[in-house]
Amino acid sequence: MNLKTISWKNNSIRIIDQTKLPGKLVFLKIRSLSLLWRAIKELKVRGAPALGGVAGLGVYLGIKDFKGDDKKAFLRKLKEVSDYLGSSRPTARNLFWGIERMQSVAVNNRHSPVPEIKKLLFAQAQKIIEEDRQACRRIGFYAARFFHDGDAVLTICNAGILATIDYGTALGAIYRAKEDGKRLKVYACETRPLLQGARLTTWELRHQGVDVTLICDNMAASLMREGKVKKVITGADRIAANGDTANKIGTLGLAVLANYHKIPFYVAAPASTFDLKIKNGRQIPIEQRDAKEVTSLFFKQPITAKGVKVYNPAFDVTPHELITAIITDQGVVEPPYSKNIRKIICK
Amino acid sequence: MNLKTISWKNNSIRIIDQTKLPGKLVFLKIRSLSLLWRAIKELKVRGAPALGGVAGLGVYLGIKDFKGDDKKAFLRKLKEVSDYLGSSRPTARNLFWGIERMQSVAVNNRHSPVPEIKKLLFAQAQKIIEEDRQACRRIGFYAARFFHDGDAVLTICNAGILATIDYGTALGAIYRAKEDGKRLKVYACETRPLLQGARLTTWELRHQGVDVTLICDNMAASLMREGKVKKVITGADRIAANGDTANKIGTLGLAVLANYHKIPFYVAAPASTFDLKIKNGRQIPIEQRDAKEVTSLFFKQPITAKGVKVYNPAFDVTPHELITAIITDQGVVEPPYSKNIRKIICK
Repeated sequence: MNLKTISWKNNSIRIIDQTKLPGKLVFLKIRSLSLLWRAIKELKVRGAPALGGVAGLGVYLGIKDFKGDDKKAFLRKLKEVSDYLGSSRPTARNLFWGIERMQSVAVNNRHSPVPEIKKLLFAQAQKIIEEDRQACRRIGFYAARFFHDGDAVLTICNAGILATIDYGTALGAIYRAKEDGKRLKVYACETRPLLQGARLTTWELRHQGVDVTLICDNMAASLMREGKVKKVITGADRIAANGDTANKIGTLGLAVLANYHKIPFYVAAPASTFDLKIKNGRQIPIEQRDAKEVTSLFFKQPITAKGVKVYNPAFDVTPHELITAIITDQGVVEPPYSKNIRKIICK
Repeated sequence: MNLKTISWKNNSIRIIDQTKLPGKLVFLKIRSLSLLWRAIKELKVRGAPALGGVAGLGVYLGIKDFKGDDKKAFLRKLKEVSDYLGSSRPTARNLFWGIERMQSVAVNNRHSPVPEIKKLLFAQAQKIIEEDRQACRRIGFYAARFFHDGDAVLTICNAGILATIDYGTALGAIYRAKEDGKRLKVYACETRPLLQGARLTTWELRHQGVDVTLICDNMAASLMREGKVKKVITGADRIAANGDTANKIGTLGLAVLANYHKIPFYVAAPASTFDLKIKNGRQIPIEQRDAKEVTSLFFKQPITAKGVKVYNPAFDVTPHELITAIITDQGVVEPPYSKNIRKIICK
């Protein structure tokens, strides 16, 4: 079965409800902006590239029922919709990138009538999605030289089909290797607190016929020391101009461990993940999430006594010096990043 | 309230059922060896030093109802009981240390009548427990110089009251600092898969009035990078002659992260944790546990699709070069460990 994480269907956004996986494959029809905001916040749809796609459709969803031809009011509405969508999750660059692309279509066509701008916005949202599909395949293409038959690869969170449209970034590299006839063994970190690795990555990889073994996050060091992991590959939520990379909490730890054990550490992400206005990782805002994600398992049975203090950042920043290469849809970026990112991403 | 993890009461072993915490403080009365074996395997009683204590009482529980004065049969029974108990968990040195201490009492008094040997065995079991109480306090004494007012300390699993008799090893160091008027801030790793940190350490520290914040295991790197952790201290399950230390899975990762971030990494353990017959960590057997611990949260709701492969070692080995100091009840061991362990532990 071909999975499609996000699409436009019957005048609404259709997403896979990722909080229902691996138990059930449920598609959600999202007809209003506030429902979309909640779906993003609650991680029903997640993954940086997927957020770029859903941002485009989301902006269109928010303005499509605008009545009349008052251009000023329309542009005000567009800004309102954009700001609201952007407030759902602060770290992922792609969300803002998607919103900005939609905004620039409106700005560039501000002399057209409102119905015409609406049409162009819809076309742009579809284009963002189609570009993501292609970008993932190009990432897979550029990643191919790093993966060999028999490799054992460690990953965290879900940077796969479910994080994009239908192929994946870090897992796209795995799918490409599989298409090329290489047999890879994948270790998936469960990825506390919300277990995207356990719930989504193991489900998705098995769905695609890839050999996957689940570990708890704290088992990665042991795997590496035993020589069971040859490569690490992760996605990214935002990459600064110097290569510092924000990604799911735990990524930094894997990068330090890989460095210590002399294992290459790759980041796979489309160009839309780069934020060249940001010099380094210290400037990336890190989303702090609800303590309940840690103290209760899926907000159900408590695992601590009441009132325990919790530190629950959703992301961490991996400094560029721990990253072996960043594999993008525009090509592979290797150190020195400050120089080479500009060369490849802005060409 | 003064907690006592293990005691002998009404002709049976009384333990705190740690699988019921933090929900309920339940004491279990254990009247048979097979129940004790299961209680150890299922982690109702856990923690290396506590296993030493329960091993002594367990051996006594196993032989106390031996009838008659057939010395050979008695010693056979003793061996049978010892082997059975030792098969419950392979990694913790203290379990075997406790068993061996009981066996040597029997060997040293093999010319005494059986009832006399039984009495001596009971006295020895009580002695092991009393010695653990004192050992923990001495560890706290030796640890004092490493901890300062205002320090933020990271720990994993539970090396506290619940892992010993009534004071703790790594957490004993924290309690001692508190007694000395130092205000410490403790970060507790939740410790997947069985969440001893989330369930036991946060409960115990709050019970003792210590400021504790819970994190998921994969957040430790981020804490360190932000400068929020000044020291790491953990317990140990077995320490080889060269200082390589087996402890709860995840400890190795913390040691590598601490090393990278130039944060001191301490191990706190009584002398009974050392296994000088073992040259290095590669010779320590690592217990592999049931996949269900990872795929289901407490064996209840599944978090992965059925049939997902799992790697689930209960422990990992931290190489001695990552350990700043080993704090024992006999004094502090600093590198070079191969030389200094023998000096301090065998004196």
